[in-house]
Amino acid sequence: MPEFLKLANADEARQLLYKAMQGAALKSELIPSTQAAGRYLMEEVIADEFLPPFTRSSMDGYAVKAKDTHSASERFPIYLKIIAEVPMGAAPQFTLDPGQAALIHTGGMLPEGADAVVILELSHKTSANGLEVYKAVAAGENAIFKGEDVKPGQMVLTAGRRIRPAEIGGLLALGKMHVEVAARPRVALLSSGDEVIPPQQSPQIGQVRDVNGGMLAALIESEGGIAVSYPILPDNWEKISAVIRQAYQENDVVVISAGSSASPRDMTAEAIRQLGEPGVLVHGINIRPGKPTILAYCNGKPVIGLPGNPVSAMVIAHFFVRPVIRWMQGGSQYLATPTLKARLELNYAPQSGRDEWIPVQIERKGSDYIARPVFFKSNLIFQLAGADGLVYIPSNLHALEAGTQVDVVAL
Amino acid sequence: MPEFLKLANADEARQLLYKAMQGAALKSELIPSTQAAGRYLMEEVIADEFLPPFTRSSMDGYAVKAKDTHSASERFPIYLKIIAEVPMGAAPQFTLDPGQAALIHTGGMLPEGADAVVILELSHKTSANGLEVYKAVAAGENAIFKGEDVKPGQMVLTAGRRIRPAEIGGLLALGKMHVEVAARPRVALLSSGDEVIPPQQSPQIGQVRDVNGGMLAALIESEGGIAVSYPILPDNWEKISAVIRQAYQENDVVVISAGSSASPRDMTAEAIRQLGEPGVLVHGINIRPGKPTILAYCNGKPVIGLPGNPVSAMVIAHFFVRPVIRWMQGGSQYLATPTLKARLELNYAPQSGRDEWIPVQIERKGSDYIARPVFFKSNLIFQLAGADGLVYIPSNLHALEAGTQVDVVAL
Repeated sequence: MPEFLKLANADEARQLLYKAMQGAALKSELIPSTQAAGRYLMEEVIADEFLPPFTRSSMDGYAVKAKDTHSASERFPIYLKIIAEVPMGAAPQFTLDPGQAALIHTGGMLPEGADAVVILELSHKTSANGLEVYKAVAAGENAIFKGEDVKPGQMVLTAGRRIRPAEIGGLLALGKMHVEVAARPRVALLSSGDEVIPPQQSPQIGQVRDVNGGMLAALIESEGGIAVSYPILPDNWEKISAVIRQAYQENDVVVISAGSSASPRDMTAEAIRQLGEPGVLVHGINIRPGKPTILAYCNGKPVIGLPGNPVSAMVIAHFFVRPVIRWMQGGSQYLATPTLKARLELNYAPQSGRDEWIPVQIERKGSDYIARPVFFKSNLIFQLAGADGLVYIPSNLHALEAGTQVDVVAL
Repeated sequence: MPEFLKLANADEARQLLYKAMQGAALKSELIPSTQAAGRYLMEEVIADEFLPPFTRSSMDGYAVKAKDTHSASERFPIYLKIIAEVPMGAAPQFTLDPGQAALIHTGGMLPEGADAVVILELSHKTSANGLEVYKAVAAGENAIFKGEDVKPGQMVLTAGRRIRPAEIGGLLALGKMHVEVAARPRVALLSSGDEVIPPQQSPQIGQVRDVNGGMLAALIESEGGIAVSYPILPDNWEKISAVIRQAYQENDVVVISAGSSASPRDMTAEAIRQLGEPGVLVHGINIRPGKPTILAYCNGKPVIGLPGNPVSAMVIAHFFVRPVIRWMQGGSQYLATPTLKARLELNYAPQSGRDEWIPVQIERKGSDYIARPVFFKSNLIFQLAGADGLVYIPSNLHALEAGTQVDVVAL
């Protein structure tokens, strides 16, 4: 059995993985824009229309020639003649001459000859067609010009962009009802271990339920992947190597949570090594929890071996599986994990000689956030479930004093 | 037509809405735990088993009696006799006597008589059954006791709790394959305006595509609601009032993006007023964008009138529709919007005399985030789509200097 390589730290491990994934070939698909939230664009989106398509009012008021109003004030209003009302949803069938105004609603099209809008609150209708204006408006005021948002030929969304509701709004504004996005990667999920049974069964003494399968499937789906679950594997080389190979052939990413003891972990590493080049990049990360992690990239497909215990598996999945799924759907520019800045409530000293991810509870105090470390033995799933986030504590820090600002990654 | 009430500020508006919703009746449903990510528990979850179900090793090593090791050191190791190997997935069929040790793997069950585990790295196998131990272990070291995570009768998840992958892990560990969660609320989506056409059509001059329908549907679905879209309404009282009533009867929440000019907005408010008590809570918020917002609660169902222009609709939906959807599925304890602390890149002075939500782009600089205001005329959807988040600027601030720390809400 192969020996452990030198343990990588978390950053080195991440960089090795990202570097290997540079050339990953992504699949794309055309889907309705309205269903594209959370997906990543595989094309540039180029406008082929003006937005707005005509010069429109942004307020309720009167369309005017700005220069007619330049002397207007509350004491000395200027007087205009109201000649018409702009219809909604149609072009006005008239032209504004000097000294004239037209009633216009928000979104209405400015008539020919008008270049600004006086809002209702700064004008007064004195008769059926008489209008007083109390304040000068500049050309363009309260109007949005044709093409002010977007012009034909303009690139409005870059390839790789993550689609949020605002982007969907933009696509619909341009009438783009379909977009080319990266396909959701199929992610095989394998659990192994002679002691592991399906969660719906009652464990005999010495057995434990498979927690990782369902938990990681939820995490993968929440990130946009398609979780493909395989039956629990025994600690048996023929079976492990055959099913890992099958999962590798049938999917875009493979995630294995290995049996918790050393020998099945080694079998997993060996099985991964046989899948393709460059193979295992990292075998062991100098971090707690999560030391026995395997990161591999085999002929274009990421393969990740997670620790068997659910707490470690969850923490490592958060930092290594999530970004891989994002990457495999074109989101490589969104790999930085957003963090919340909080202050440690208590002193904390790293305890393991390794870098640590410690679980914390977050509480808002005024405009600050307080991070309260959850002190726990590893492997206790409900203690992890009681945490709001994780704080990274490098092992070269001897201690963090209470009040130190830390970056919290939400769980 | 009714006059505008005094404009509420955003906080007052929110509080009025939340107060009215206190008594909202939520529907619940039983779903598979593995599909419960993002949902909110409608029951307390009580453990009916021990977790772990037996005392297990958390490391690869040797099960021992801790007191046998108390004098062990690197220079003066103690010697134990290896009597067996603990099988994975079954109870050991032997008892440890003083002076004895048993090989054990991570996750293996401690044999009767053992109370700690010596890790491999701090021991050495000198012969087939001879073991040197180089460091004392305390009772319980490298072991997780039966029930150390959870004991029968213990409440492990509170009602109202949002389910994340970690909670799914906990549920599966206890064999709880189904959970009672709040049903996803049905959210009716209505757009109105004589100038508004479906997005797949090409606008004639004066017309605009319906952007809000699809954009808000995506936002509602991303928050866990079920978006139910209705056809675009003309600016016609009979039609507006009839369809709003129908949507109200068929759904749990109603969201209307009203025509952009004053008269359809007033029709919308009047139609909402007729739905039930207490009715319209807020008509007009002193904020930009979003002034013409209507917040109502009618006989147990929230009804929200959004501004017609997509940028305003999106910003207001972010701060008022999202929390309503969360509330209606039991997530009222998760209403605080998480923010990112960033520093303004430029001076910014509020421009409208109202509180403002200004769009910003975020850039990481070292360990800090920089927020760069996107200066824009309202109503430009692609300028909103180009922003990463929003910063709240109260109107009572005359100006914010560059470098000021602000809270950014991700879009």
